[in-house]
Amino acid sequence: MTETTQKHLKKLYKTLKLLKKYEHAVALMNFDFETAAPPCARDDENDTINFFANESFRISNSKATKETIVYLYEHKDELEELDKALIDGLYDEYLKTKNVTPSVQLKWLKVYGRAYTDWLAAKKAGKFRYFKKSLAAVVAAAREEINLRENALPDFYDNLLNDCEKGMLKAELDGFFGELKVGLIDLIAKIKSSKQVIRRDFLSRKVPVYKQAEFSDYVLKLNGYDFDKGYLTTTEHPFTMDISRYDARVTTHYYEDMFLSNIYSVVHEGGHAIFMQNERAEDYEHFINDRITNGMHESVSRFYENVIGRSEEYIGLIYPQLKRVFSEELKDVSERELYEAVNIVEPSLIRTEADEVTYGLHIVIRYEMEKALCSGKLKVEDVPAEWNRLYKEYLGVTPKTDAEGVLQDVHWTSGFGYFPSYALGNAYNAMYLKKISEDMDFKGAIRRGDFAAINEWMKERVFKKANVLTPKEWLKDITGESLSAKPFIDYLTEKYSKIYCF
Amino acid sequence: MTETTQKHLKKLYKTLKLLKKYEHAVALMNFDFETAAPPCARDDENDTINFFANESFRISNSKATKETIVYLYEHKDELEELDKALIDGLYDEYLKTKNVTPSVQLKWLKVYGRAYTDWLAAKKAGKFRYFKKSLAAVVAAAREEINLRENALPDFYDNLLNDCEKGMLKAELDGFFGELKVGLIDLIAKIKSSKQVIRRDFLSRKVPVYKQAEFSDYVLKLNGYDFDKGYLTTTEHPFTMDISRYDARVTTHYYEDMFLSNIYSVVHEGGHAIFMQNERAEDYEHFINDRITNGMHESVSRFYENVIGRSEEYIGLIYPQLKRVFSEELKDVSERELYEAVNIVEPSLIRTEADEVTYGLHIVIRYEMEKALCSGKLKVEDVPAEWNRLYKEYLGVTPKTDAEGVLQDVHWTSGFGYFPSYALGNAYNAMYLKKISEDMDFKGAIRRGDFAAINEWMKERVFKKANVLTPKEWLKDITGESLSAKPFIDYLTEKYSKIYCF
Repeated sequence: MTETTQKHLKKLYKTLKLLKKYEHAVALMNFDFETAAPPCARDDENDTINFFANESFRISNSKATKETIVYLYEHKDELEELDKALIDGLYDEYLKTKNVTPSVQLKWLKVYGRAYTDWLAAKKAGKFRYFKKSLAAVVAAAREEINLRENALPDFYDNLLNDCEKGMLKAELDGFFGELKVGLIDLIAKIKSSKQVIRRDFLSRKVPVYKQAEFSDYVLKLNGYDFDKGYLTTTEHPFTMDISRYDARVTTHYYEDMFLSNIYSVVHEGGHAIFMQNERAEDYEHFINDRITNGMHESVSRFYENVIGRSEEYIGLIYPQLKRVFSEELKDVSERELYEAVNIVEPSLIRTEADEVTYGLHIVIRYEMEKALCSGKLKVEDVPAEWNRLYKEYLGVTPKTDAEGVLQDVHWTSGFGYFPSYALGNAYNAMYLKKISEDMDFKGAIRRGDFAAINEWMKERVFKKANVLTPKEWLKDITGESLSAKPFIDYLTEKYSKIYCF
Repeated sequence: MTETTQKHLKKLYKTLKLLKKYEHAVALMNFDFETAAPPCARDDENDTINFFANESFRISNSKATKETIVYLYEHKDELEELDKALIDGLYDEYLKTKNVTPSVQLKWLKVYGRAYTDWLAAKKAGKFRYFKKSLAAVVAAAREEINLRENALPDFYDNLLNDCEKGMLKAELDGFFGELKVGLIDLIAKIKSSKQVIRRDFLSRKVPVYKQAEFSDYVLKLNGYDFDKGYLTTTEHPFTMDISRYDARVTTHYYEDMFLSNIYSVVHEGGHAIFMQNERAEDYEHFINDRITNGMHESVSRFYENVIGRSEEYIGLIYPQLKRVFSEELKDVSERELYEAVNIVEPSLIRTEADEVTYGLHIVIRYEMEKALCSGKLKVEDVPAEWNRLYKEYLGVTPKTDAEGVLQDVHWTSGFGYFPSYALGNAYNAMYLKKISEDMDFKGAIRRGDFAAINEWMKERVFKKANVLTPKEWLKDITGESLSAKPFIDYLTEKYSKIYCF
């Protein structure tokens, strides 16, 4: 490395270290905003968060920073592997944002902030029309943002997809979702025609929050979540947040009459957090610890939630503790009844509460809608009608109000392209499920609660290169194969044919 | 106002608005640090907090800001009342800090950060020697800080006292604490010789945390705390934090076998928060909302905690709810037994768990020690021995380890001069207790739970001018009198002579 390159690299590291402080502060405040901020304080807190996010953007987008990035990109052959990966990402980001001024960026932040507020109000009222204007503004902001990029892909929606899951564009996803849709509709038909009766009366029994909270701690620890490097609290819409190197936080929501909701929420979010807690030290040292894609993350969280969490072996593992903590509420429920109940398949309205099988169709609907919205084929005012039409067609259900329809998810308050990651996550993990089952006694490990072994395999095979490979490369690296919906459909068919006897 | 003055004032307001963002961020992060930050993340979080506190100091201490303050101070006759108050305070602060560079300020922040860490370790081990070096460093940092001031008072400790409680210096406090000590020792002797037996077996009964949490919500709401502008969560050492205009947060700590600890902690902290929630809008608009002194604050929190919270009327008010929530645990406890139990007087080791009567002696001891430490008469290495000697002499008790002795409080990790505020708070509120009792049927209002009336009186008479008057002026304004320990001793004597029959 020449002396000049060395100097530039040192300068870059100094800037990235400074930016980490801003990111850390913004993350802490965002976490507070979602978990603690009192209603009347939210506007002020939002302003403060935006101020620091904007300050951070000023630094990362300053002339000096840009020059450093361009210089290093032009001399990247001199750099070691992880610094190369760092510079590739920064240069990509540089091309995306070089034409964006801090004031334009602040304008967008305000659009998203406003959209969030409008969405809350619209959802509360159950009326899409309160959100309509903001949704149009979000589309416009996204379009403006893409138009300013120097490295934009020709198709608008492809850019958004690429941001969330690099390389997984419409050309690929059309095929994937087509395969998934056919497979799922076929499977759901088989399940629907099954005569199997699954007991469900106990699912809505009242379970006090403090007992549910005790159980949350238990499952998180069981699965390998490290409370010394994390924290669990409550929020309206559960999420996981990567606050800093030793700080991956999990949130949940307790419903007294839906104890399962919390359990699977915690197991899902805990999966994200376990991924975060097992990132490589060198990824942090080279500032590339934030490169994991949404699809990779969802593959892991849904692996813990569904593949592990809804398996016979896992239910066997947690059943004794469940009977102890919920001794009153679940005293007449057998292990088999619990296993069947956590796997009830039934078309429904709400994505986050959907079962493992119908879930994919919720995503297909959102993918098709985002595609149409971004291409201009679907007008903002027609969004609720199209939503309801697709739910009727694919799932056979119709929302009573927009609150349980098009307004159920927060995602469209800040952009598009995230939803496909959920379905990709399922597909990815079904592919690596085959691998882990070859490499170790996977079911036995779950049965024994040997998460040390499972997490070690995940760390070595799934987590390790997530920050340096694209999803396609990463999938190939783990499984030797390319994306396909088939392993996921096969996994579901094998599992549910036993539960529903077909 | 001349045009130039107008321009300067506008510039100052712009800077203060910017500083508010930093203060808001630092407060949110400090709150997170005390309530949520996981053990392994604390160092990083502390670094980030210090970084932004230091950035904030850079702005407030910049050449441009200093010049604006000096200009406005020299032209303050042109300003309206509240801006005058603003400038007086800023100019005072300017004289204090004009010789402090950001790097020196960061050095002090690190001393305090280190002291906190050492104190935690020392307390855990019960050994003062792990904290000794840091305590010496805190004394040295305080001395260095005072030496750099342009407006330092001649006596070192007077400066620290003045920072906490303007105008309440040694000359005044020596008299006050002398009167207090004699009065309390005499009263404690009478109580000790009483034959009255107070039932206490139920105080250590196990009460589940979730029931205690339900009761916390109840008392906070009852007393007039507004949850739309606040938040309650748990921490190691309960505190209240003024995060932003509509955000005054309360923390507590639950012990399963000390249900009273939480109740009085919440009532005390809730008092601070009610004070914050009732500051005047114009105090915020003129950036003087942070001028309330510690003594004023403690007078209010201890008014709610003791004068109201431990009164017969308040116990009568909360008794039915207490019996409902703790129906199992307190089923055999009468209202009178509860009233007597919350007022048990007994010399003990821990300040925060001390009763209303012996509490003052814990403060006398700390005042005498701080005075000796700051004058150099007491050496750092002799601190634990002196502590134990004074506890033996004044309270007749001896700590088994330093953890329940000299290491019990966190305060000395960041400086000196705060402790007297607690005792002053008691004296202040005993003085305005006389006033409120003249102006309204105070006891009746408590009995009826009419906190609207009580808080309205407090707002008009106690809260209103707290940001613009010094403690002495404020006390005169409320009561027409000057500081004296007598009303407090009288209040205690009247109350406890009935409980202990002397």
